[in-house]
Formats: sequence, C-alpha cells, structure tokens
Amino acid sequence: MIDPTVIIIVVGVAAFAISGVIAGTRQDANILTVLVLGVVTAIGGGTVRDIILNIPVFWVGDFSVVWLAILASLVAFIFAPLFRKKLWKVLIYADAIGVAFFSVAAINKTLALGHTGEVAVIMGFVTACTGGILRDLLTGRPPMVIASEELFVTPVLIGGIIYVLLLDIAPNYAAQWPIVAICFIVGFRAIAIERGLQFPKWLRMRPGKRAE
Amino acid sequence: MIDPTVIIIVVGVAAFAISGVIAGTRQDANILTVLVLGVVTAIGGGTVRDIILNIPVFWVGDFSVVWLAILASLVAFIFAPLFRKKLWKVLIYADAIGVAFFSVAAINKTLALGHTGEVAVIMGFVTACTGGILRDLLTGRPPMVIASEELFVTPVLIGGIIYVLLLDIAPNYAAQWPIVAICFIVGFRAIAIERGLQFPKWLRMRPGKRAE
Amino acid sequence: MIDPTVIIIVVGVAAFAISGVIAGTRQDANILTVLVLGVVTAIGGGTVRDIILNIPVFWVGDFSVVWLAILASLVAFIFAPLFRKKLWKVLIYADAIGVAFFSVAAINKTLALGHTGEVAVIMGFVTACTGGILRDLLTGRPPMVIASEELFVTPVLIGGIIYVLLLDIAPNYAAQWPIVAICFIVGFRAIAIERGLQFPKWLRMRPGKRAE
Repeated sequence: MIDPTVIIIVVGVAAFAISGVIAGTRQDANILTVLVLGVVTAIGGGTVRDIILNIPVFWVGDFSVVWLAILASLVAFIFAPLFRKKLWKVLIYADAIGVAFFSVAAINKTLALGHTGEVAVIMGFVTACTGGILRDLLTGRPPMVIASEELFVTPVLIGGIIYVLLLDIAPNYAAQWPIVAICFIVGFRAIAIERGLQFPKWLRMRPGKRAE
Repeated sequence: MIDPTVIIIVVGVAAFAISGVIAGTRQDANILTVLVLGVVTAIGGGTVRDIILNIPVFWVGDFSVVWLAILASLVAFIFAPLFRKKLWKVLIYADAIGVAFFSVAAINKTLALGHTGEVAVIMGFVTACTGGILRDLLTGRPPMVIASEELFVTPVLIGGIIYVLLLDIAPNYAAQWPIVAICFIVGFRAIAIERGLQFPKWLRMRPGKRAE
Repeated sequence: MIDPTVIIIVVGVAAFAISGVIAGTRQDANILTVLVLGVVTAIGGGTVRDIILNIPVFWVGDFSVVWLAILASLVAFIFAPLFRKKLWKVLIYADAIGVAFFSVAAINKTLALGHTGEVAVIMGFVTACTGGILRDLLTGRPPMVIASEELFVTPVLIGGIIYVLLLDIAPNYAAQWPIVAICFIVGFRAIAIERGLQFPKWLRMRPGKRAE
C-alpha cells in the first residue's frame, strides 16, 4: 500500500503547481516563466515551514518533489487552454485543494518533531498559505489569503484547529482524521466561494473605517 | 521586578499587532483575517531575525508571545471603531513604537550571541522593519519603510547605531540606554511625521531621474 | 593572484547594489532609503541561499560584503544623475550582471557543500533572483523576473543548467566555465532586451486565457 503521506504531498504539490501556472497566464508568460511560478508555489510553503522549524529543507535532500512540481506545471501549461473561460475558478479550487493537503501535511510533520499543538496549527497555516502568497506577490496581485472577499483564512485555520484537536482526543483514528480535515477545509472553502459566505457584521471591519 | 526585556517585547508585539489589525481595515476584512495580519506583523520580524541568526525561532519554543499578539489583535479589533477618523495616525504611531522596541530587543539579542556591533545594527533594522513589510505586502500596499514620504529609515537606523555606540562607550549604563534609544527613535519619527522632515535636496533623489 | 570567487562576489554585489539604488529613484527617496535598497538587493539573494542550505548567513560572519554594498550604493547615488535618461537601461543591465555572477557563485557554493547538480541549479536561480525580487517588492513594482516582457528567467535558468553540465562533463576546465556561464547569461539577456526575443507562440500563454 502507498504511504498516505506520499499521496497527501503529491496531491498538494500538483494542485499548487497548477494554481501557479494559471496565475502566470495573466502575464502572457512563456513556458519557463510559468514553470518557475508553478514550482515556487508548490515548494514555497514547505520551504518556509522547514526553515522555521530549523530542519533541512525537504527538497534539498529529496529532489523528487521538485520533479513532480515541474511535471504538474507542464501538464497545467498544456491543458490550460481547455479551461479558457473558467481559469479563475480552476485557480481558486486548485489553491483550496493545495491549502487543505499542505495544512495537514505540515501539522503532521510539526507534531512528529515533538512541538505543541498550538505551534502545529500555526505551521499548518503558514505552510498552506505561503506558496500562494509567493505566487500572488510574484504575479503582482495582492495576496488572495487577505484580499479575497470570500472566506479564505477561516476554513484552513478552523480546519487546522479541529484536526489537531481530533488527533489529541481520538489518536486511535489518526489514519482517518486527515481525510476528515481535508474534506472539511476544501468543502468549507467551496461553500464560501459558491455561496459568498460572510461573517456576521459585528465580526467584520466596516468600510467606514479604512486607514488610508 | 519585571525583566525589562519582557516589557520591551510585550510593548513591541502589542504595537505591531495593533498596526496589523488597522492595516487590515482597508480590506473590509473579518475578525480572523485581521487576527492573521496582527500576528504576522507582530512575530514576522523576530522570526526572520532568528532564522538569519540561525537560532530556534522564538515562538516555536515559547508560544506565549503568539497569545499576546492574538490578544492585542482582538483588543485592536474591538476598539478600532473608536478611532474611526484617525486610524492612519494610530497605524503609523503603533508602527513607530513597534519599530523602536523591536530594534532594541534585536540588538540586545544579537550582541548577546557574540556578534559584532555592525551585525547587531543590521539585525535591529531587519527585525524592526520586516513585520511591517510583511503587513504591507499582505494588504497590497507598497512597503511603508520605502514608500512613505516622511523619514522612516533614518530614525531606526540612526537610533540603532547610537544605541550600539552607547553600549560600547558606556556599558555601565546598559540598563538606561534602551530607554534613550527607544525615546530617540519614537521621538525622531514623531517629529518626522508631524513636521514633514526631509533630507536636504542634495541628499535626495530628484524627481527628474525616475527609472520607468 | 586574487581568488576568482572574490571577484565574482565583488562584481555581483556591486551590480545589484547599483540596481537597488536606481530602483529607489522612483520613490523620490533620500540617501538612507536608497542605501537600504542597495544593500537589501545586494545581500538578499545570498541570505536566502544560506538559509535554505542551512549554513550560517555569509554576512553575519564576514561583514565586508555589506561594506562593499554600502560603498557601491553611495557611488551609485552620486553618479545616478549622469545617467538621467538611461536609468532604466542601467537598472536592467546592472540586474543582468548581478544575476549572472550570483548564479555562478551560488552554484559553486552549493556543489562545494556536496549537494546534487539539480539542487545547485535551483539554488543558483533562487540566489540570482531573490535580491531583485525583494528590491521590486520594496519599491512597489511587480517583480521583474516574472513581469518583464523580455526573456528573463530563460537566460539564468539555461545558463545555470549549462554551467552545471560543463562542470560535470569537463571538470578540468572548472576555472574557465564560470567565465563561459557568466558571458552566456549576460549575453543572452542583453540580446533578449535589445532584440525583444520571444518564445514561439506555442510555448507562450495566450492573452485570451487570462485568469481574472
């Protein structure tokens, strides 16, 4: 049987690489430029995770993840024209899937290193969001994680907290909880996108008080 | 008596968290989004400092600073409406206070590790500015440290140099110099903001020669 | 005889510092602001390289590179007015030279640490581009590496791959290959800038499919 961790990483890397390539389409970019965007989006989050945790950066020791990101980027480059009118949607769903898988993978890695649940939640969030932040900054957009009107932070943050709590409360089901967490994060974000979910007014900053 | 280092960190973290929350108001953001902005602004600079100095990142070992940042962000979220028309001013003063306290804290930490005064000055500057740079990039603004028309770099850089020199010349007053340095940086920046201080013309780039 | 590595670092640092100062002219900045931009551009790439490779950051141990960056920034500040109408061109050529020298220096350092050629190519690319990316983000521009219409990624990426292959195939000429690689990268980029080189259409993303 395939190690579930491998599946999580493969899906996360592929999803982020695709989102990076699609983000590059705005720039009328060539194949190498979008390849760089795909790879940076796919491995950026894990790189920052390993640097903060003070462990060797994962792809320096095992380059296969980079090859996977390159491959996924090439596939995305070839098939992007098929989604001509729905690229934005593919981008945010690819991002949502990448965020969910990377959050779970980073929480697992952080807990395995003996850190507390609080640190694991933060590392899950940072790992899940950094790749997309780098992608957005490199393509000259304000980072989606903060700028998007749909709920973005909420699903991954709440999902991470729930996942860590589940692992703590019922460790016997440690093999099932990742699936629950990933479905929760992707599902929550999908509903947020499709339904335009919002916080109640008293939990939002109101337009009247922008700092300019 | 309370350790002065703790006071410095508490004030710095709270000031930066507040500035992050206020920066988030531009985005019509919800409570979790501004919380993320507050925490990233508050712990971003110290995180980069520890990574460059190749020591364990402070909040991975001691999570209390993150709780403090979360608490300060929530308080800022609740009280922001009271400052409706003066948010921009609150933001730049909170930033100035955070910059001053973090600069001194980072110089202390760098010198305690046995590095030279030159390295300490740079680390003070990097630590003081990185949180604000991340805040500005995440909210889609050009970083204040470079873009703001008021003097920004000058107070923190000169203040850091003076602080390191004072510690070297009169180490007996090592307990007093942080207060001097913080007052100098905040005071200099306040005057720069209120009076629109500028360098003499021959020390500025002139408009005629923009690179486009 | 002077160590070739020293020459490579001196030229790279000076070129990047100049590009940072020129980028700062857009902001009507003062001398300290452009100094910060010059230094960040010059040492940013190497800093990220050392952090990813998990080795001590080069300028923390040996501050002379920072002094060099400060000196080059001051010189650029003084002489920038002479190039009033050609600043943009000076900027992109300074950037091209910095990219070429830093790519080679980073590949050498990565291989010397015992990492594989693939990792060395990536580290050469990351080191060469990060300083310029930080410069562009700090001055509020979309990073040139992705946004520029001329070929940017291609010369440094292909040049890095060729350099690693040459070192592998004919290690006896290890002293000559850096010169070949640097000339290739600068020359390729110069032709791309002057001739407006482009990939054939089927290797570019077409305007019709922008994600918005």
